[in-house]
Amino acid sequence: MELGPPGGSGPAEPGPRLRGLRGADAAASASSLSRFGAEAGCRASAVAAVLPAGGSGERMGVPTPKQFCPILERPLISYTLQALERVSWIKDIIVAVTRENMETMKGIIQRYQHKRISLVEAGVTRHRSIFNGLKALAEDQPNCRLSKPEVVIIHDAVRPFVEEDVLLKVVTAAQEHGASGAIRPLVSTVISPSADSCLDHSLERARYRASEMPQAFLFDVIYDAYQQCSDYDLEFGTECLHLALKYSHIKAKLVEGSPDLWKVTYKRDLYAAESIIKERISQKVCVVMDTKEDEEHVGHCLEEMLKTELNVMTSDFEETQRLLNMVEESNLSILYPVVVISVHFLDYESVPLGQKMEKVMQIREFAKEAKKRNILLSGLLIYFPQVENNRGLEEQKLRESLRQGTTIISALIKERNSGLIGQLLVA
Amino acid sequence: MELGPPGGSGPAEPGPRLRGLRGADAAASASSLSRFGAEAGCRASAVAAVLPAGGSGERMGVPTPKQFCPILERPLISYTLQALERVSWIKDIIVAVTRENMETMKGIIQRYQHKRISLVEAGVTRHRSIFNGLKALAEDQPNCRLSKPEVVIIHDAVRPFVEEDVLLKVVTAAQEHGASGAIRPLVSTVISPSADSCLDHSLERARYRASEMPQAFLFDVIYDAYQQCSDYDLEFGTECLHLALKYSHIKAKLVEGSPDLWKVTYKRDLYAAESIIKERISQKVCVVMDTKEDEEHVGHCLEEMLKTELNVMTSDFEETQRLLNMVEESNLSILYPVVVISVHFLDYESVPLGQKMEKVMQIREFAKEAKKRNILLSGLLIYFPQVENNRGLEEQKLRESLRQGTTIISALIKERNSGLIGQLLVA
Repeated sequence: MELGPPGGSGPAEPGPRLRGLRGADAAASASSLSRFGAEAGCRASAVAAVLPAGGSGERMGVPTPKQFCPILERPLISYTLQALERVSWIKDIIVAVTRENMETMKGIIQRYQHKRISLVEAGVTRHRSIFNGLKALAEDQPNCRLSKPEVVIIHDAVRPFVEEDVLLKVVTAAQEHGASGAIRPLVSTVISPSADSCLDHSLERARYRASEMPQAFLFDVIYDAYQQCSDYDLEFGTECLHLALKYSHIKAKLVEGSPDLWKVTYKRDLYAAESIIKERISQKVCVVMDTKEDEEHVGHCLEEMLKTELNVMTSDFEETQRLLNMVEESNLSILYPVVVISVHFLDYESVPLGQKMEKVMQIREFAKEAKKRNILLSGLLIYFPQVENNRGLEEQKLRESLRQGTTIISALIKERNSGLIGQLLVA
Repeated sequence: MELGPPGGSGPAEPGPRLRGLRGADAAASASSLSRFGAEAGCRASAVAAVLPAGGSGERMGVPTPKQFCPILERPLISYTLQALERVSWIKDIIVAVTRENMETMKGIIQRYQHKRISLVEAGVTRHRSIFNGLKALAEDQPNCRLSKPEVVIIHDAVRPFVEEDVLLKVVTAAQEHGASGAIRPLVSTVISPSADSCLDHSLERARYRASEMPQAFLFDVIYDAYQQCSDYDLEFGTECLHLALKYSHIKAKLVEGSPDLWKVTYKRDLYAAESIIKERISQKVCVVMDTKEDEEHVGHCLEEMLKTELNVMTSDFEETQRLLNMVEESNLSILYPVVVISVHFLDYESVPLGQKMEKVMQIREFAKEAKKRNILLSGLLIYFPQVENNRGLEEQKLRESLRQGTTIISALIKERNSGLIGQLLVA
C-alpha cells in the first residue's frame, strides 16, 4: 500500500500519519528541519508570508487561473500553502485573491484543512496585491487584523516546491541586510531588441541572474517602499527587490536557490509539477502482511523483490476493508490519492480460475466506495504454481510471477490513474 | 486502437501510415505545411541545419547527457531529429556529438531510421561544436563532404518541439537580414548582482527578451564570424547572434517564437516533454470493427461514446493478430509505443465468467510477443447484460459499462505504461 506522504523535499504532509510507515529518511529529514526551525525561531520572533494569487493565468492557455489548476485533482495553490504551512515558524500566511475567486479559495482552505491563512482582496496588478497583503499586517491600517511581523516573506502561489531551507536563508539574510531574494542562473541568453525587432545587444549570461521567489524583507523596509512608490511602479513593476532598492535604499542579499523554485507558468509546467508530485508521493509505501501459512513463503519473496523499489500490502478482504477505514480516519487521503493494492496468491493448478475470479470480483464494489474517499483500490492476483517433484521449476515460475507483480504494482503507484480502479490484475 | 502519429504540432511521423486512420485535422495541417515548404523551396535553394549535441547535461542531475535521456524509451535527440527531418526543404542535418557518444548516435540513427543526417565531432564548447558543424558544410575545408547551403539553421538537440512554421520564419528572415533568431518573453525578472552577491540593479523585464532557438543565418555570414572570432568567444560565448553582430556586423531579425521552443534543461523538463508527447500521440486513434451481429448495437454505442474523445478497436483474436502484424509492417511502432486494445463484449448472464476468462487469458501471451515490437496490447471486457422484459434497464446498464470502458481505454492510452500490458480489464 502506498501512503501518500512525500519525501523531505516537496509538498509535505501535515497531519497524522499511519503507524508502521516505512520511510528511508523521514526521521533524518524531520530532525534537520526542526533544528532549522529552532534557529529561526530564536532569531525571528515573528515571520509572516504574503502570497499574491490574483493572476489570470493567460500564459497557460487555459481558462482557469494557473494557481487553481488541479494537480491530482487538488488545486496548485493548495500545494504551495502546504509547503508554507509545514514551516512552523511562519505565523501567518496572507493570500491575496480576486473577489470572484474568494469563495473558491475559502473552499480550498476548508477542504484541504489549511491553517494560519488569512485572505485579502487582490489588486489589479501583482504589486497592488502584495501591498494589500502587507496592509493586512501593518499596524497603521484601520482594518489590520493581524500582528505586525518582524520579517515578511513574499512568495508566489505557483511555486509549490519551495523548501524550508531556502525560506530560512532568505529570512535570515533579510534580518541582516533588510531584504533578500532567491536567484537562479539564466537558462537562455537575454537580449535587447531595437524598435524594429532587430538585435540591439545581448547580455553576457554569466553576469546576470534570474530573480525568483521566495523573497524576504524586514517588514518596515518593504512596507515603507510600497507606501512611497508611484502608481507607475504599482501598475507596471514586478520586482519587490527593486522597490526596496529604489525607495528604502536597501541592496537585497541574493541567495542561490535550487531548481525546485521554478514558477508554474505554462501548461508544460503543470505536467512537470504533476510528475514531480507523483514521483514524490510514490516513495513511501506500507506493507500489511497477513498471509496464510502456505503462502507465507511467497509473500516474503514478493516483499524481498519489492524491497529495492517499493513495498506492498498482502491481505484478505476483511483486512483490506479495515485498512481502508484506517486510511480514511488518518486523513491521509485528503491531500493525495492513496493507492491501495490488495494482493492475492493463487495456485493456478488447484483452484479453478473462474471460481477465484468470481470471489475476487468483489473488489470492484469496494473500489467504487473507496474512490469517494480518494483511495484508489485495485486487486492483484499472483500465480503461485505448485509443480510436483520440481522445486526448482516451481521457484523459477514463482519468481517470474512476482517480478511481473512488481511491475504492475509500480505502474499502478506511478500512474495513480483512477480509471484503473477496481480492476483485478494478474501476474 | 491508437496509432501513434501526433497532431500537426510536435514531433511528427515520417514514414508510412495505416490506411483508415481517423484524424481531425491531419489533412488540413499537411496541406498548409506543404504550401510553406513550396514557398521556402523557391526562395531558399539550399538549407541545412546544425545541431550541437555535445553537452554533458550537468544541470539535469542525471549521468546521461540530456539529449540522450529516454522519453517513452526513445532518446530525446531522436524526437528533435524527427522534427527537422519532416521539413522536406532542410537538405542536410549535421549533428555534432562527442567522440564517446558517436556510436550511440549512430545506433539511434539506424534504429529510428533517421535520414539526411551527418555526424561531426563535437568541440569542448557549444560554439566549437557549431563551428565544426559549419566546417563540414563549408567549401574551403579539405574534409567538406556536403554542399554549401545558402542558409544554415542552428538548433538545439534538446528542443524537440520545433515547428516548421518557426523554422520557415527564421530562414526567410535570415535571407533578408543575414541573421535571425527566435525570442520569447522573459519569465523572471533579470537582475545584476554585485561582487558581494547583493542586488546591483534589475532590468526592466519588458525591454528584454530571452534568446531561444532555432536561429538561421546566411551561411557566409555565420561562417565568416566563426572564422574571425577569438578563442575567448569560442570558450565562453554561447550566443551565435552575438557573433554575427560582432564580427559580421549583422543585426539579426528577431522572431517571436511559441512556448513550444523551450529547452529541456532540468529533470522536470523531461517529465513535461514526456507528458506532451503522450498527449499528442494519444490524439489519433483507429477503429477496427468486426462485431458479431448481436453485439453490433453495443459496438456502435461504444464508438458513439468514445467519439468525443477517442476511438477503439473491437475485434476477435484472429483479427487482433492480423492487426498487430499490420502495425508492425507499417513501421509505426518504431517511433512510438502503439497501444492496441482488444475489446470483447460479454453477456454476463449467459456466458460463465470463468469460461470466457480462460479463453481471453490468451491475451497475455499475445501481449508478451507484441511488446517486443513496441506494441502495448491489453484486453477489455465489456458487460453486455440482457435483462428480460426490461429494455430500458438493459440499455441503462449497458451505457454504464460503456462509460467505464471509455474511462479504462483513456487511461491505457494516456499512461502508455508497459507494466499493464496483457491484462484483461473489466468494464
